[in-house]
Amino acid sequence: MMTEPAKLYQASVIAPVNIAVVKYWGKRDSVLNLPCNSSISVTLSQDDLRTHTTASCSPAYDTKDNLVLNSAQEDITGARTQACLRELRRLRAILEDTNPSLPKLSTLPLRIVSENNFPTAAGLASSASGFAALVSAIAYLYELPSSLTDLSRIARQGSGSACRSLFGGYVAWYKGMDVDGSDSIAVNIKPASHWPTMRALILVVSAAKKNVSSTTGMQTTVATSQLFKYRADEVVPHVMTEMTLAIRDKDFHNFARLTMSESNNFHATCLDTSPPIFYLNDTSRAAIRVVEDINQKAGRLVAAYTFDAGPNAVIYYQESDENLVAGTLKSFLANVEGWEGKGEKIQEKSCDGLSKDAIEILRVGVSRVILTGVGEGPRRTMQSLISVDALATNNM
Amino acid sequence: MMTEPAKLYQASVIAPVNIAVVKYWGKRDSVLNLPCNSSISVTLSQDDLRTHTTASCSPAYDTKDNLVLNSAQEDITGARTQACLRELRRLRAILEDTNPSLPKLSTLPLRIVSENNFPTAAGLASSASGFAALVSAIAYLYELPSSLTDLSRIARQGSGSACRSLFGGYVAWYKGMDVDGSDSIAVNIKPASHWPTMRALILVVSAAKKNVSSTTGMQTTVATSQLFKYRADEVVPHVMTEMTLAIRDKDFHNFARLTMSESNNFHATCLDTSPPIFYLNDTSRAAIRVVEDINQKAGRLVAAYTFDAGPNAVIYYQESDENLVAGTLKSFLANVEGWEGKGEKIQEKSCDGLSKDAIEILRVGVSRVILTGVGEGPRRTMQSLISVDALATNNM
Repeated sequence: MMTEPAKLYQASVIAPVNIAVVKYWGKRDSVLNLPCNSSISVTLSQDDLRTHTTASCSPAYDTKDNLVLNSAQEDITGARTQACLRELRRLRAILEDTNPSLPKLSTLPLRIVSENNFPTAAGLASSASGFAALVSAIAYLYELPSSLTDLSRIARQGSGSACRSLFGGYVAWYKGMDVDGSDSIAVNIKPASHWPTMRALILVVSAAKKNVSSTTGMQTTVATSQLFKYRADEVVPHVMTEMTLAIRDKDFHNFARLTMSESNNFHATCLDTSPPIFYLNDTSRAAIRVVEDINQKAGRLVAAYTFDAGPNAVIYYQESDENLVAGTLKSFLANVEGWEGKGEKIQEKSCDGLSKDAIEILRVGVSRVILTGVGEGPRRTMQSLISVDALATNNM
Repeated sequence: MMTEPAKLYQASVIAPVNIAVVKYWGKRDSVLNLPCNSSISVTLSQDDLRTHTTASCSPAYDTKDNLVLNSAQEDITGARTQACLRELRRLRAILEDTNPSLPKLSTLPLRIVSENNFPTAAGLASSASGFAALVSAIAYLYELPSSLTDLSRIARQGSGSACRSLFGGYVAWYKGMDVDGSDSIAVNIKPASHWPTMRALILVVSAAKKNVSSTTGMQTTVATSQLFKYRADEVVPHVMTEMTLAIRDKDFHNFARLTMSESNNFHATCLDTSPPIFYLNDTSRAAIRVVEDINQKAGRLVAAYTFDAGPNAVIYYQESDENLVAGTLKSFLANVEGWEGKGEKIQEKSCDGLSKDAIEILRVGVSRVILTGVGEGPRRTMQSLISVDALATNNM
């Protein structure tokens, strides 16, 4: 007697990276990933930086839940990942209880395959796109009716900043007040189409080895910095208001001013930690200097630097100033990777008037550039990373 | 007819450098040099770092006031120097009015010669010892009955931190409340003899070119930093109390803990400035790392780093830990200048367990060490830098 082949259920998603312009630093609850302050980010285009994830389940899978990231087995037993899976299964189980005709996917083992199109070694925040893709893919697989904001509550428990990667464009993560984290959610301030000319150029710094993990760093800052509480309670709330207005008004001057001072304020708090945390190195400082010089030369703010928990500079600018900003950088960084394709049309501008020391440091310290811009939120794709052969190789 | 030779009046002083452990940053009045917060420093031994100054006046001098520093003519017309000279002359004039038999020195031109025994290029705070020596020398020349605290009020107007160099040992500069600065004075917390075993090792960083002058930097910080006011109003007052107790109790653990967090808090405020001010470079950060590693290895705080407005590290430690601290540094910095003489007896200690990266950066980035310790305040000396021949060469 021939048995019907076991069903394979799957859904695939690609999800974007986001780079904060008002920084998340410090947890008030490290289990639920509840932040000490609200934050705002720009979602970057998935054409350039993305995580592609396929989530699948099948009665034929006899293994436990399993995650393969960039072709390597990942540990899925961590509390963060488990919190996401548990919550998504719980929501699926509610659906199944309500409608008994639905297949009992919540009881099946999950097999998840995920790929980043950017080198993890580049020190880019892959956990944000990674958890956004994971949560979105499983939500599609389970056919959950949850809103993106509902999903942001789940993704946040995987990696705080992941909640912001569920939306495109300009995104706020409100810290919330509730102890259970129910109001600590991401919302869309404005879609990418509101201000589509926002560009981002990333200077990837060589040997960008992260010394202190974000989670450890945050906990040490909260425990020891004398300035941190003032930043979280007094500084950031004002910046949140001003940054939201700058985005609403497409006011690049204020967007740039606030982005740079916010980055500096965040890194100041890191330095005020005992022992101090340094994410900026001499190359990062040279990038700051060159951005200042470019702005000085232009007579207005045409570029804004920001740094996450690492030495890479992300430089925001408007498309209309592309030659002025990216073209000036290209004039002395033309030999590094990353100008192929869309960078070829950028006209090199003279770097006269820029600090020669800073240019020299960048020439030595920058290993590649990434040219990107504001982009859309996660989207479902039919491109699967799991073939039906998976059923035959379920002990991989 | 033979005229009597014109009289030469002179007095000479040597004055010390001081290195703050609670930092002065930010002026509430830039004319009177009134600080936004109080500070505490350790006066360093004049055997190692000093300014030697001779102040003189004579009816035979036909020039205006004149200052020669390290054999080069110095501009004496700046508001800071003028404020000191004006105030000292005013006090002398009061004496002369009270006692008409006194020579009218307040009306004579001054000729001042000053020499530092350390290279100005090393980026050490020469303005503190410089103004302390200038004010003390003229006070002796004028035979003023002023107390050291009275003189600190005058020296402060030359260079804020100079007021602390009028005392030996452990010195506080209280910010004061009065608008005229009359209560913004330095006082001795404890003399050097109270805790004479305090040592200081300075790592002089190569190419220690100061980008931003302290005065400009302070003004930008006060105007733009979002954290500065909180530091000045809330953080420093607590540290002042705790540091005073640590010094009173000769409690090196707390002295070290507070010194390092204060240095970091100050530099955090600099980073929070727009545009950001960076005094620490990769070499400075390597010094921080190595001090942390030495403390970690010792299982207690045996060394404390602090940085002024520049990349040089000043490392405080107790004499009993000299081999542990200076000996460990010597093990990989033995080839740089500064170990001759008293450094020869320091036994090299293994640098196992220290960050190899940090050691390599220090090997390349440190140009010399200076070995010193807590010391006494300014003292009068009979050694003059002005010969009586000066009368014959009064147009030099």
